[in-house]
Amino acid sequence: DRTGFPEAVYSSGKDYEDLIIIANNYFKSVKPNEKSSLLFTRLSKSRFESLNDDLSDLKEKGFNLDYNPKAKILRINNYPLKDKINPDYGKIGILTAGTSDIPVAEEAKIVIQEGGCEVISSYDVGVAGIHRLLPQISKMVKDKVNCIIACAGMEGALPSVVAGLVDVPVIAVPTSIGYGVSDNGKTALFAMLQSCAPGIAVVNIDNGFGAGVLALTIVKNH
Amino acid sequence: DRTGFPEAVYSSGKDYEDLIIIANNYFKSVKPNEKSSLLFTRLSKSRFESLNDDLSDLKEKGFNLDYNPKAKILRINNYPLKDKINPDYGKIGILTAGTSDIPVAEEAKIVIQEGGCEVISSYDVGVAGIHRLLPQISKMVKDKVNCIIACAGMEGALPSVVAGLVDVPVIAVPTSIGYGVSDNGKTALFAMLQSCAPGIAVVNIDNGFGAGVLALTIVKNH
Amino acid sequence: DRTGFPEAVYSSGKDYEDLIIIANNYFKSVKPNEKSSLLFTRLSKSRFESLNDDLSDLKEKGFNLDYNPKAKILRINNYPLKDKINPDYGKIGILTAGTSDIPVAEEAKIVIQEGGCEVISSYDVGVAGIHRLLPQISKMVKDKVNCIIACAGMEGALPSVVAGLVDVPVIAVPTSIGYGVSDNGKTALFAMLQSCAPGIAVVNIDNGFGAGVLALTIVKNH
Amino acid sequence: DRTGFPEAVYSSGKDYEDLIIIANNYFKSVKPNEKSSLLFTRLSKSRFESLNDDLSDLKEKGFNLDYNPKAKILRINNYPLKDKINPDYGKIGILTAGTSDIPVAEEAKIVIQEGGCEVISSYDVGVAGIHRLLPQISKMVKDKVNCIIACAGMEGALPSVVAGLVDVPVIAVPTSIGYGVSDNGKTALFAMLQSCAPGIAVVNIDNGFGAGVLALTIVKNH
Amino acid sequence: DRTGFPEAVYSSGKDYEDLIIIANNYFKSVKPNEKSSLLFTRLSKSRFESLNDDLSDLKEKGFNLDYNPKAKILRINNYPLKDKINPDYGKIGILTAGTSDIPVAEEAKIVIQEGGCEVISSYDVGVAGIHRLLPQISKMVKDKVNCIIACAGMEGALPSVVAGLVDVPVIAVPTSIGYGVSDNGKTALFAMLQSCAPGIAVVNIDNGFGAGVLALTIVKNH
Amino acid sequence: DRTGFPEAVYSSGKDYEDLIIIANNYFKSVKPNEKSSLLFTRLSKSRFESLNDDLSDLKEKGFNLDYNPKAKILRINNYPLKDKINPDYGKIGILTAGTSDIPVAEEAKIVIQEGGCEVISSYDVGVAGIHRLLPQISKMVKDKVNCIIACAGMEGALPSVVAGLVDVPVIAVPTSIGYGVSDNGKTALFAMLQSCAPGIAVVNIDNGFGAGVLALTIVKNH
Amino acid sequence: DRTGFPEAVYSSGKDYEDLIIIANNYFKSVKPNEKSSLLFTRLSKSRFESLNDDLSDLKEKGFNLDYNPKAKILRINNYPLKDKINPDYGKIGILTAGTSDIPVAEEAKIVIQEGGCEVISSYDVGVAGIHRLLPQISKMVKDKVNCIIACAGMEGALPSVVAGLVDVPVIAVPTSIGYGVSDNGKTALFAMLQSCAPGIAVVNIDNGFGAGVLALTIVKNH
Amino acid sequence: DRTGFPEAVYSSGKDYEDLIIIANNYFKSVKPNEKSSLLFTRLSKSRFESLNDDLSDLKEKGFNLDYNPKAKILRINNYPLKDKINPDYGKIGILTAGTSDIPVAEEAKIVIQEGGCEVISSYDVGVAGIHRLLPQISKMVKDKVNCIIACAGMEGALPSVVAGLVDVPVIAVPTSIGYGVSDNGKTALFAMLQSCAPGIAVVNIDNGFGAGVLALTIVKNH
Ligand SMILES: Nc1ncnc2c1ncn2[C@@H]1O[C@H](COP(=O)(O)O)[C@@H](O)[C@H]1O
Ligand SMILES: Nc1ncnc2c1ncn2[C@@H]1O[C@H](COP(=O)(O)O)[C@@H](O)[C@H]1O
Ligand SMILES: Nc1ncnc2c1ncn2[C@@H]1O[C@H](COP(=O)(O)O)[C@@H](O)[C@H]1O
Ligand SMILES: Nc1ncnc2c1ncn2[C@@H]1O[C@H](COP(=O)(O)O)[C@@H](O)[C@H]1O
Ligand SMILES: [Mg+2]
Ligand SMILES: [Mg+2]
Ligand SMILES: [Mg+2]
Ligand SMILES: [Mg+2]
Ligand SMILES: [Mg+2]
Ligand SMILES: [Mg+2]
Ligand SMILES: [Mg+2]
Ligand SMILES: [Mg+2]
Repeated sequence: DRTGFPEAVYSSGKDYEDLIIIANNYFKSVKPNEKSSLLFTRLSKSRFESLNDDLSDLKEKGFNLDYNPKAKILRINNYPLKDKINPDYGKIGILTAGTSDIPVAEEAKIVIQEGGCEVISSYDVGVAGIHRLLPQISKMVKDKVNCIIACAGMEGALPSVVAGLVDVPVIAVPTSIGYGVSDNGKTALFAMLQSCAPGIAVVNIDNGFGAGVLALTIVKNH
Repeated sequence: DRTGFPEAVYSSGKDYEDLIIIANNYFKSVKPNEKSSLLFTRLSKSRFESLNDDLSDLKEKGFNLDYNPKAKILRINNYPLKDKINPDYGKIGILTAGTSDIPVAEEAKIVIQEGGCEVISSYDVGVAGIHRLLPQISKMVKDKVNCIIACAGMEGALPSVVAGLVDVPVIAVPTSIGYGVSDNGKTALFAMLQSCAPGIAVVNIDNGFGAGVLALTIVKNH
Repeated sequence: DRTGFPEAVYSSGKDYEDLIIIANNYFKSVKPNEKSSLLFTRLSKSRFESLNDDLSDLKEKGFNLDYNPKAKILRINNYPLKDKINPDYGKIGILTAGTSDIPVAEEAKIVIQEGGCEVISSYDVGVAGIHRLLPQISKMVKDKVNCIIACAGMEGALPSVVAGLVDVPVIAVPTSIGYGVSDNGKTALFAMLQSCAPGIAVVNIDNGFGAGVLALTIVKNH
Repeated sequence: DRTGFPEAVYSSGKDYEDLIIIANNYFKSVKPNEKSSLLFTRLSKSRFESLNDDLSDLKEKGFNLDYNPKAKILRINNYPLKDKINPDYGKIGILTAGTSDIPVAEEAKIVIQEGGCEVISSYDVGVAGIHRLLPQISKMVKDKVNCIIACAGMEGALPSVVAGLVDVPVIAVPTSIGYGVSDNGKTALFAMLQSCAPGIAVVNIDNGFGAGVLALTIVKNH
Repeated sequence: DRTGFPEAVYSSGKDYEDLIIIANNYFKSVKPNEKSSLLFTRLSKSRFESLNDDLSDLKEKGFNLDYNPKAKILRINNYPLKDKINPDYGKIGILTAGTSDIPVAEEAKIVIQEGGCEVISSYDVGVAGIHRLLPQISKMVKDKVNCIIACAGMEGALPSVVAGLVDVPVIAVPTSIGYGVSDNGKTALFAMLQSCAPGIAVVNIDNGFGAGVLALTIVKNH
Repeated sequence: DRTGFPEAVYSSGKDYEDLIIIANNYFKSVKPNEKSSLLFTRLSKSRFESLNDDLSDLKEKGFNLDYNPKAKILRINNYPLKDKINPDYGKIGILTAGTSDIPVAEEAKIVIQEGGCEVISSYDVGVAGIHRLLPQISKMVKDKVNCIIACAGMEGALPSVVAGLVDVPVIAVPTSIGYGVSDNGKTALFAMLQSCAPGIAVVNIDNGFGAGVLALTIVKNH
Repeated sequence: DRTGFPEAVYSSGKDYEDLIIIANNYFKSVKPNEKSSLLFTRLSKSRFESLNDDLSDLKEKGFNLDYNPKAKILRINNYPLKDKINPDYGKIGILTAGTSDIPVAEEAKIVIQEGGCEVISSYDVGVAGIHRLLPQISKMVKDKVNCIIACAGMEGALPSVVAGLVDVPVIAVPTSIGYGVSDNGKTALFAMLQSCAPGIAVVNIDNGFGAGVLALTIVKNH
Repeated sequence: DRTGFPEAVYSSGKDYEDLIIIANNYFKSVKPNEKSSLLFTRLSKSRFESLNDDLSDLKEKGFNLDYNPKAKILRINNYPLKDKINPDYGKIGILTAGTSDIPVAEEAKIVIQEGGCEVISSYDVGVAGIHRLLPQISKMVKDKVNCIIACAGMEGALPSVVAGLVDVPVIAVPTSIGYGVSDNGKTALFAMLQSCAPGIAVVNIDNGFGAGVLALTIVKNH
């Protein structure tokens, strides 16, 4: 409902039938030549494949069903994501500590692109390999990102190191990666809230979507 | 060390002797006519009163010791806080759910003013009195705040209602106000991280300082 | 066993064979023309379908097996639910914050109707969309409900806003909807117990049944 | 603000100066012969004694300062509590498991009386002495209470036994009495929420105030 | 290894192959006419059925495989359980609060019988139906049990009521029955440890085996 | 109230005035030459000293006030503790892992002696010094104790080693000794409930009283 | 990347396709006659079997796929593990409390062998059978191990007893074995951190890999 | 008792009288010219000052009472700490993230020196100032430390960065520094156990003593 913010359906836990109804309802009133799109987040590959069959009506009306299997997001649309980008918003950087954090980062990325902002990203640059991390941060500073999203599970230390080096807002996304005392991401979450680098914005565990929306709120207001 | 960000000493848990040393060291190299200031956060009234005596050398050199008892911040400075305000930064709004949340809000306020940004605030406007809250939010929107900090203990619901009504970034500060299942603020914290309004930035419990720094990072980058 | 209160079997975790025995035993001694009914709560659709086959004897004796798939309640009965309604009890209102909270609300609804009281409901009216919520509360007040049940997961803020606006008892039902710090509903539960609006009655997580029984206890005693 | 509900100030954590201001403001506009009263809850005896001195103006205007040291409630008023009782509201029963739970029970009692309802109570009747408890419950049933408040710490079993025997609403108040795994009352709280007797209304730990308000809401609506 | 105590294998989490090896090894050296038996606890029905096939060698040697599906215990033996009973040990009573607690009670029962002691039991007598519970306790007292095992999930209140009425040792077994704040049995466990009836012996959640061994230790030493 | 069990008042948290009333009431009806005694547990030394003054009436009537500062128990009595010992009950052994666990052990000891049973004890014999522990256990076995109470904080491993070596009931008392992850004794408690030696009886943290009562229940029933 | 430390891929949670890519990439640049190996940890048997088919190219190039089903480690290599052993590193001892802890121990063992150090092990020697444990520790001392890894779930007491008897570094590995209050290994973890034997090195729950790497770091630096 | 390991008394929670007895007993049997020393850890300054008076006998016999107020350790001795240093042990490095972590680091330092090993340290080098940290680590590597102890509270990220850069064993000591979600050091503890840099040795919160003993065990065995 808020202009310029991505319209998204949290699919997890919803009945399959309801997803079909939501999709059809959403696009019913789209006028010819009107650009329109809708995201379904947290959608499994198998549910996407069923929707791909059951939403053939939408496809006939010219809609595409673009599924990103890492982000687990389906984008139903009648125009490409890149057409949305508004250069006024600048750029948002996304970092991950490990490869297992990538799905969360990709969720944020698509939400941000759908909101019209360009994304640059660098994955698997955790603090245990500090010499690989530092150049990536420098690069983002040089690329003039307006905001950095740092995703990390395990000990969640990445945002502390990043925030110590940059002046733009840092959004920390704890992920549920880890085992034992990881507590499904609570250790990373608490580490981020408790960072010795002040002024980090924290969102819920695995909440790439929320991080993306927050980043958009920041860049759209500058 | 980052230009334009307030220099602050977290006083709680530090030895009194160390506070004196830090203060004297900090201002030693200040040149004549150079404007300079330093914040001591989480400083009890009685420790302030001792410092007021023991830092008489600084006072003789023209420094003032301004203590805000609600915020529990001492500002040592040779120029007034209002001289810092940079109108380019716009305004930041601060709300609290109850009166007990005011110290946290005031901590944020002074940090933000020290960082050069104007603050407008409205306290004791929790969600159980929704008809008192709504006009306050409208007023902040009309005043064109660039960011809103919402402080709440207990059930921590204030940021959810606020974020549903505004388009600027909302920073949620959980406070340790409450008893029983309040868990010293964890219930409010988790409620804020788990908000049904996406895109809220959350900081640690009672962390008015961090909320202020985050808000500054946002307004300084726009 | 208490007159006028719904008889209910908590099916989850019971062996299928035991469910059949319980059903047959319960109706064995029902006299001709005697009205009788029994609820099976937390019954999966597939188990219902098996019971539908295996309880054919009961069906031959004139009993219906009405299954509500949202509430996951099977009602075995020889007369319709609406025949139970006793207008003396007035009305009970049920609200949910999201669509995912509806199963819990529906469990409460059927229990209340089985207990003889009329229900009016309004779903998906969470506090992040406060302008959609307020008219729904007003409507319930105008409809003179004697009690309101408010179901919410995530940050569980709905009952606080409702209780601030009405004078009838508010029963808060936390749901396990959410992820990360939702802690399977504990965050919503604690938020409700910790509400800044005093006098809210809270029940266990996802306990639509208990909320329904409590609401009945209230309206039957007035 | 809601008519007929007790006006109360949660004193704990408030500055002493603020308490004086609140008291004076509250009674400023009371007209001659207008009956008026205000409760200060969670007020220590020593703070009461100071207020007793510092509010001499109010006393000169005919106000009494009645302090209940068990409930830790100060009632400032110009008419006796018993004048408030409205027989239409019936009676509310209050039980405690131990003697240490009495302060919580007394807090509820005064709130209810201030709200205009009669209270009957029976203390120190825990479930480990079941033969002492049963006659007390029977007596309350015979006395036709409209609602029972059961306060218990430790294992919190009292409300389960009570609710199994009565048909009126049972409000369970967990107290922080106990040690080790009592977790400051969380064990009692969880036991009450998890009761095998369905339909119990639960409030926050030590929340006698909330239990009283809830009980009033119930009896005022019948 | 301790004489007279049941030999038992905790099957859960062990590889199926290892169970076969353990069984065969255990009975390898049994001499003709020597009485011998071994328990496999926490054994699923399907694993029992496989063992029933794969241990045909043992069956040919005269061993029986008696499986109790409620207790989930397999007893491999060459003589009946009742032959073990030693009347010197007296009797041990077992109570459960609900029907869902029965598997835990049955685990204790078989362990005790295998240890040579008679068991009397009464199930589904929780504290919400106190008038059904009291006669059962009286009966056990009259039957001169030497020890009572009380199994309960949910709020875990049963042992408190029992211990208040009897003078023999009471062993409390919390079960994982419940949902929401049941915390998989921790609420019942903490309630039992925190009982207002002093002197209750508590064992781990669902630990019918441990309760049985403890009861045996008590009766064998008197 | 149960014959032969020690009468005890849990003094912690009770008002000083109430302690005096309880003591005077208790001994009011004692007949000349009737032996009588009462324990006040968890009584600080300073409160004992006040009672020693304020209960001079009792002293004049021939009562002694014996205070054990380690156990923090006051025994008011008109005959010595050793007169209570009933040799039929045999002996109960008490072990502690460290010296800091001694207060809990002493609380149990006095309760047991007051209940009429002899105690033998051995303190500071934790598992990190296994060669010091083993002879102490052997000695207790040789002394034919009927039950062993093992008190331990930190990692709570003592009862596991003891129970592996003896056939009598072992009662484990976790203590709140430790720091960091000791969680005020929960780590020791959970270790004891989770012991690899089956059949250990566990009581609440620091609950020497409960352990003593349980031990008495065991030896009185044999 | 650190010389002499085993190269390992944490397979759990990675896509199967990614495992194939990682394996092929890793060995791509291996020169003829160059010895090379790579570990895949936490790899299920079924995934190993698929890899065994899908990595036929590697096998043709002379690589072996050695899978240890207890450790759940696949070692891809062109030379036997025993060729790696460097006698300078001495020996590392590994103990487990139970048989269920063996997979964790085996994970450590293979990592250590891959790092070039000899391992001696003794499994199922928990503290409840202290007379079986003591000779095993003596034997390791006599065998001059440079470091001992002690793996235990349940109450996690093994490292305390071991560290009390040896002078070499003891590494404690808590395992997730247990139920009820085991909290998936947190009880064992906390017991180990809280050990009364000072100087124990603790790693994350089930982290045999980390224990192995730590042991290697110790022996390689001496 | 183990040769070469520091003898230490954990003073916290011990009675003052016991400390005097322990000290006098310990040095009673010291022969003329025999070097002897004893540490009292966690000893407040005021208790030290009393001991300084009350142990005048020891002082007359030639013993010194050296108190380190940061470490809160009293060393009673008849020879200087530096005489203990054994160059064979090499060097141990100690780092802290903040200034508030210094007391824990100093506790470790004195224990290590008392054990005969040289210490080099660098304090207040947390990960939010990565460019200040990196040269300190390089320096320690150049100085050939055999082991590094890294102390950190808050998010506890320091050991992860350190372990990624060095090959010697890293001992992580979580401290209780922080507030809100710091959970008195549990967040730092869990972060360290969950580090993405494998092979870190972790000890209990604030356990500088244990870290020192572990470091000694490592360097004494190489
Ligand atoms: N009230 C506060 N809450 C959280 N962080 C603070 C606070 N005051 C100061 N800080 C931060 O703590 C750092 C100073 O810590 P210290 O060196 O211990 O004084 C500063 O860089 C601030 O960023
Ligand atoms: N969905 C439910 N949630 C909570 N309690 C229930 C539910 N359904 C039935 N019950 C209660 O559980 C009791 C039945 O338990 P049972 O004997 O196990 O069927 C009934 O007395 C009901 O009060
Ligand atoms: N130290 C203690 N720890 C636990 N329970 C105790 C203790 N001392 C007394 N009790 C029990 O607490 C009950 C008395 O509680 P109260 O009526 O509050 O004095 C007695 O019946 C004792 O069983
Ligand atoms: N600061 C400390 N932190 C942890 N353990 C300590 C500390 N100081 C001494 N210890 C250990 O505690 C044991 C002594 O405990 P105690 O017998 O109570 O003095 C010694 O063996 C030390 O290993
Ligand atoms: Mg920064
Ligand atoms: Mg918004
Ligand atoms: Mg209301
Ligand atoms: Mg009832
Ligand atoms: Mg009893
Ligand atoms: Mg034993
Ligand atoms: Mg050792
Ligand atoms: Mg390293």
